[in-house]
Amino acid sequence: MTTTQVTLVQIDNYGPWTVTPEPRREMDLQTLQSRLFADIAQFLGHRDAYVFSTRLDNMVAVTNGVDGEAHASLQESIGNRYPVSVSLGTGVAARPIDALESANSQLQLEGSAQDEGRVEVLSGEYLTETSPSDLQIAHFDVVDATGKYTDRLNEFDTYITIEQAYGSLMRHLREKHGALAFFVGGDNVIAVCPDLPERAFTAAIDHVAADVDVELQVGVGRGASAHEAGFAAKHALEDCRHDGTSVELFGAPAAGD
Amino acid sequence: MTTTQVTLVQIDNYGPWTVTPEPRREMDLQTLQSRLFADIAQFLGHRDAYVFSTRLDNMVAVTNGVDGEAHASLQESIGNRYPVSVSLGTGVAARPIDALESANSQLQLEGSAQDEGRVEVLSGEYLTETSPSDLQIAHFDVVDATGKYTDRLNEFDTYITIEQAYGSLMRHLREKHGALAFFVGGDNVIAVCPDLPERAFTAAIDHVAADVDVELQVGVGRGASAHEAGFAAKHALEDCRHDGTSVELFGAPAAGD
Amino acid sequence: MTTTQVTLVQIDNYGPWTVTPEPRREMDLQTLQSRLFADIAQFLGHRDAYVFSTRLDNMVAVTNGVDGEAHASLQESIGNRYPVSVSLGTGVAARPIDALESANSQLQLEGSAQDEGRVEVLSGEYLTETSPSDLQIAHFDVVDATGKYTDRLNEFDTYITIEQAYGSLMRHLREKHGALAFFVGGDNVIAVCPDLPERAFTAAIDHVAADVDVELQVGVGRGASAHEAGFAAKHALEDCRHDGTSVELFGAPAAGD
Amino acid sequence: MTTTQVTLVQIDNYGPWTVTPEPRREMDLQTLQSRLFADIAQFLGHRDAYVFSTRLDNMVAVTNGVDGEAHASLQESIGNRYPVSVSLGTGVAARPIDALESANSQLQLEGSAQDEGRVEVLSGEYLTETSPSDLQIAHFDVVDATGKYTDRLNEFDTYITIEQAYGSLMRHLREKHGALAFFVGGDNVIAVCPDLPERAFTAAIDHVAADVDVELQVGVGRGASAHEAGFAAKHALEDCRHDGTSVELFGAPAAGD
Repeated sequence: MTTTQVTLVQIDNYGPWTVTPEPRREMDLQTLQSRLFADIAQFLGHRDAYVFSTRLDNMVAVTNGVDGEAHASLQESIGNRYPVSVSLGTGVAARPIDALESANSQLQLEGSAQDEGRVEVLSGEYLTETSPSDLQIAHFDVVDATGKYTDRLNEFDTYITIEQAYGSLMRHLREKHGALAFFVGGDNVIAVCPDLPERAFTAAIDHVAADVDVELQVGVGRGASAHEAGFAAKHALEDCRHDGTSVELFGAPAAGD
Repeated sequence: MTTTQVTLVQIDNYGPWTVTPEPRREMDLQTLQSRLFADIAQFLGHRDAYVFSTRLDNMVAVTNGVDGEAHASLQESIGNRYPVSVSLGTGVAARPIDALESANSQLQLEGSAQDEGRVEVLSGEYLTETSPSDLQIAHFDVVDATGKYTDRLNEFDTYITIEQAYGSLMRHLREKHGALAFFVGGDNVIAVCPDLPERAFTAAIDHVAADVDVELQVGVGRGASAHEAGFAAKHALEDCRHDGTSVELFGAPAAGD
Repeated sequence: MTTTQVTLVQIDNYGPWTVTPEPRREMDLQTLQSRLFADIAQFLGHRDAYVFSTRLDNMVAVTNGVDGEAHASLQESIGNRYPVSVSLGTGVAARPIDALESANSQLQLEGSAQDEGRVEVLSGEYLTETSPSDLQIAHFDVVDATGKYTDRLNEFDTYITIEQAYGSLMRHLREKHGALAFFVGGDNVIAVCPDLPERAFTAAIDHVAADVDVELQVGVGRGASAHEAGFAAKHALEDCRHDGTSVELFGAPAAGD
Repeated sequence: MTTTQVTLVQIDNYGPWTVTPEPRREMDLQTLQSRLFADIAQFLGHRDAYVFSTRLDNMVAVTNGVDGEAHASLQESIGNRYPVSVSLGTGVAARPIDALESANSQLQLEGSAQDEGRVEVLSGEYLTETSPSDLQIAHFDVVDATGKYTDRLNEFDTYITIEQAYGSLMRHLREKHGALAFFVGGDNVIAVCPDLPERAFTAAIDHVAADVDVELQVGVGRGASAHEAGFAAKHALEDCRHDGTSVELFGAPAAGD
């Protein structure tokens, strides 16, 4: 069974800030959002955690191994260097969606995302021990995206195709399993899962193929941290590429063995 | 009638680079992608253009007013400061999708996105004159997203809701009008359009409401540059917020006038 | 005769901000300062201007070709993305020191650097026409710094050596010629000069050798912009390296021709 | 007695890289250097260490508490995201200069800074235990720099004044005590010292006043990490400002007590 620690990063009072006293230039907002996400990706990445840009004013992170002190550190650093501050809620549960639910409530109980009096919430539950099978991460990509789409279609039609595949996969995994899937660029989707068997991944791939006619493949890994599980998943995905298989679990005998 | 200049920014040979000689740490890739996007957003933003992160290895920009020399400048600066380089193709047409099609073909004719011999393509067509009605930009957001979703649901379920609304809107606008719509964070979508009448926006909003049960509002602006049109759209969107209307065109009399 | 446009970039009320309500973490201040400088370097660099980090809360830029609108643009972008704002004063004169004096007074007349009521000053004089000989830039470096120092001494003793050479050169050039010299990393110093003849550079190099026993070489270039003059200077410096000469003026016949 | 762990960060083969195949635009080099420094400042800052930009292609860090694994992590992250790589040598000694000497030799033994075959050296000695008095850090600034210089002189003449004070202080502290002092912006200098008594700081301040006629004040702190010692030093410096004293040691009774 998995044990997932999820942190919700929410920029405090961001909506109002973006239009006060007047709307701010869009490219400046894009720059600020992206660089804030990049800083959080570096901070958490160096602690073997993962963060996903999600809606940029709200970001979901898988933070097994990152304690309360480190969360406080991150919050302080952002508060020192940006014109906005962030609230951080953290929850732990077997299923990722439940951990996120718990993380979210930490913030929602303190006040609205647009309550200017609610700033820099820092609360939740942090794992004190970790074990090598705590997390299951799956790394999906589209089979031959470059050949089928990128080199043939205009970028927007390729993008629509990828977005539809992502939308189909994200809903299926959330509804069926309480797993959280995130588009991470190119044709890649990373999902945090609650200890799913191989057939669940085969079923997810079949579902997306039937739903939107896009062919996916996936590598799956386990680990004590998001990086450990995710890196194993990347390697397993390389097996898919080399062996032409759809689903590879890291450590399991590869096709053709 | 609109005149849209679109640039496709594509990272050269990125897929192979991310796994050679071994897969690279995911958070380092996320950081590199986000900071590259932010740099492009700053460069183009200061020239009153817009860029959208799109798939991050492929980014779509609306570059009216940005000439070939500036594109060369951007390409050189990235080549000097990143471990990857970019190809830039630019096209001009009345409809955004056609301009993108033209921009894309500049690259596709030279070689594959994963052809290591094809690097730093720089070609296309750049507008020499601009006029105040060249571009039409629409800025959509979800009515009371914070109250209905952010403060109530867990972030992933909010995210699924926003993603579905975006997916519905992006497909509708592309298929019906050749317009390009991009999610830009929070509950915001910015679309580049080919001179649509007010009723087309009302129809788009009705379509999304019927399709996925999410209520949008939109501000629409015109301008010689993406910033000019986009900023007018932001202001018109503020009118929607204050007046409770669904569609506002900048410069048109507001509800209640 | 040269025509130098200099802009002073000063962070508003920075001293007090760094300790209010409590002192901020030093590495966060270093990060903010460096990234702010990098953003200004990108903005001005893309307009063929130069900026030098100088004291980081005060930065000197050579902005020939950058008009008032661009200065306003830079100021607005920083104000949108940082927790601090900047004041920008610009002056034009034949000698760089006089242009800086004029730029500085724009700010000093409005109020103190630590007057919290004085923010985002934007004033001065901007060149409306430029000509190819407006600027003279000299690029100095230490002859065989790597062989003599970097590969032999500990970094601090190498650093002291470079600092002493820089200090000697900066004072000599300022006092004798009203030129502004800046250490830009490694063993490199870039100086903005008021149309000095070759012998003035020979004299400067001799002065530093006699003063602190460090051997410099220099490439000198002219141009309408800092980049044009500076890039010519870099190329001339390469001639010094190849030909073993001390002073090379770009465009003049090289030693051995 | 102090125990100082110093790391030298050196960009591999940087000189040649900046001019191959042709010299690169100066502002792109400045941007790359500054952002690399900022990333290292964030990485080390979050582990309570300090890094100083120094010559930018060579940076000196005080890394008590940062182990070999973390150094490897930093090196890998930079290698993944920049067009250059870094070598890291680390040494431990009572006196900072000796620790740096040891760190430097780790790199020099492997090869030249401009030896293209010598890349990503990672070696040295890392402390396994720390104690609260391991480091002594002093934070100097110029008494009333804003009133005496920034608000009166042009920025370059202020800069020369600060540079001279820094040069005088850095040489005195290195020669007399083996301490390493770094200018960190504004009118601030941070020095890592080998357990100096109060009178040594008074003597250093007197030396600079006599040498270059600039009046300094200093706060001094102890700690197991650079941040701990440095933050205590900042607080002690605030005492100097409030009480009008020249030297304050954190924890010692303040003037007027």
